[in-house]
Amino acid sequence: MKKGLFITFEGPEGAGKTTVIAEIDKRLERMGKDTVLTREPGGIRISEKIRSIILDNAHQEMDGRTEALLYAAARRQHLVEKIIPALAEGKIVLCDRFVDSSLAYQGFARGLGMDEVMSINQFAIEDTMPDLTIFFDISPEEGLQRIEANAGREQNRLDNETLQFHKNVYEGYERLQEKYAERIVSIDASKPLSEVIENVWKLISSRLMS
Amino acid sequence: MKKGLFITFEGPEGAGKTTVIAEIDKRLERMGKDTVLTREPGGIRISEKIRSIILDNAHQEMDGRTEALLYAAARRQHLVEKIIPALAEGKIVLCDRFVDSSLAYQGFARGLGMDEVMSINQFAIEDTMPDLTIFFDISPEEGLQRIEANAGREQNRLDNETLQFHKNVYEGYERLQEKYAERIVSIDASKPLSEVIENVWKLISSRLMS
Repeated sequence: MKKGLFITFEGPEGAGKTTVIAEIDKRLERMGKDTVLTREPGGIRISEKIRSIILDNAHQEMDGRTEALLYAAARRQHLVEKIIPALAEGKIVLCDRFVDSSLAYQGFARGLGMDEVMSINQFAIEDTMPDLTIFFDISPEEGLQRIEANAGREQNRLDNETLQFHKNVYEGYERLQEKYAERIVSIDASKPLSEVIENVWKLISSRLMS
Repeated sequence: MKKGLFITFEGPEGAGKTTVIAEIDKRLERMGKDTVLTREPGGIRISEKIRSIILDNAHQEMDGRTEALLYAAARRQHLVEKIIPALAEGKIVLCDRFVDSSLAYQGFARGLGMDEVMSINQFAIEDTMPDLTIFFDISPEEGLQRIEANAGREQNRLDNETLQFHKNVYEGYERLQEKYAERIVSIDASKPLSEVIENVWKLISSRLMS
């Protein structure tokens, strides 16, 4: 049933994903490809409402498992309403964060267990896994510095986390790269932006040729 | 760690659970027992917000798996904030609906699969299963009649379901009684209310003696 190509982008905050993905999207469109550029919650109203519960700064009492279930719920609705229909129409879907974020953040960094968090996400996504995942590799320290330099960025509940939390997230992503070595490709996101874009573009365009 | 007693009440809408539980709670208090009478979302603000997304009549596009994940998330938060602390203090917790509702409604009646819905609920509740579950046995037809007779009751998204859906829910509960024969006890809820109360009371008071 699936005919399109499903590409996800992962990595810590401040790694430059958003800028790079927008440029990749432009290049694909110039090639005449039909693309969908999205990120959870993707403008899906039910998912937006779920996300606003997750990110509400007042919700300090939120349990880690509640958070993981809410992310899985928002993911499900976004997938069903936006990603699956686009793939069925043969489009290239570029999605900023997907299941690996839950595995790295809730599964590993919050200590809920990657396998356990994968089990609820398996329920959410069934068999719709990305064809390719690009991991933006940047040290937690440098990622955090870049976030803090970006003063205009909106703060949310997750911004209260410590450097140790971000180090744990990074280690979680390292584990995922071992576990899903076929699917996840790492690129060095500490390089200048133009170089990162070229590297990501090489990866994706070679995938389109194959 | 758990010292209290965790009793849940299940069954179709219109089975009279709410009235019966309130009376049982009164009798336990007269015996000098410390009780907590609750129902999901239990006044827990995060769970209330999740529930309002689930029940919003406008959300006709909500996928069954999204719904199941949202129920599990609301359940988790209610459990962590209210049920587990009460049990730790040795209280008797009377909870109107719990995990079996998700198994009967989403798992069986919506066809998501009871084992699959149990897996996400296992993530939500870990090992906190009820010590005793009382199933209010009433035919789907009679349950629906009682709901329709109660004109003052607030309508929600689930009230749009067909009689066939309610029959499926009933069959789901039958499966659960087979699967959890040790935990779930059925009482005939088609009898007069006073008789139902006496039967539930006998069950619970004999459990308190044991």
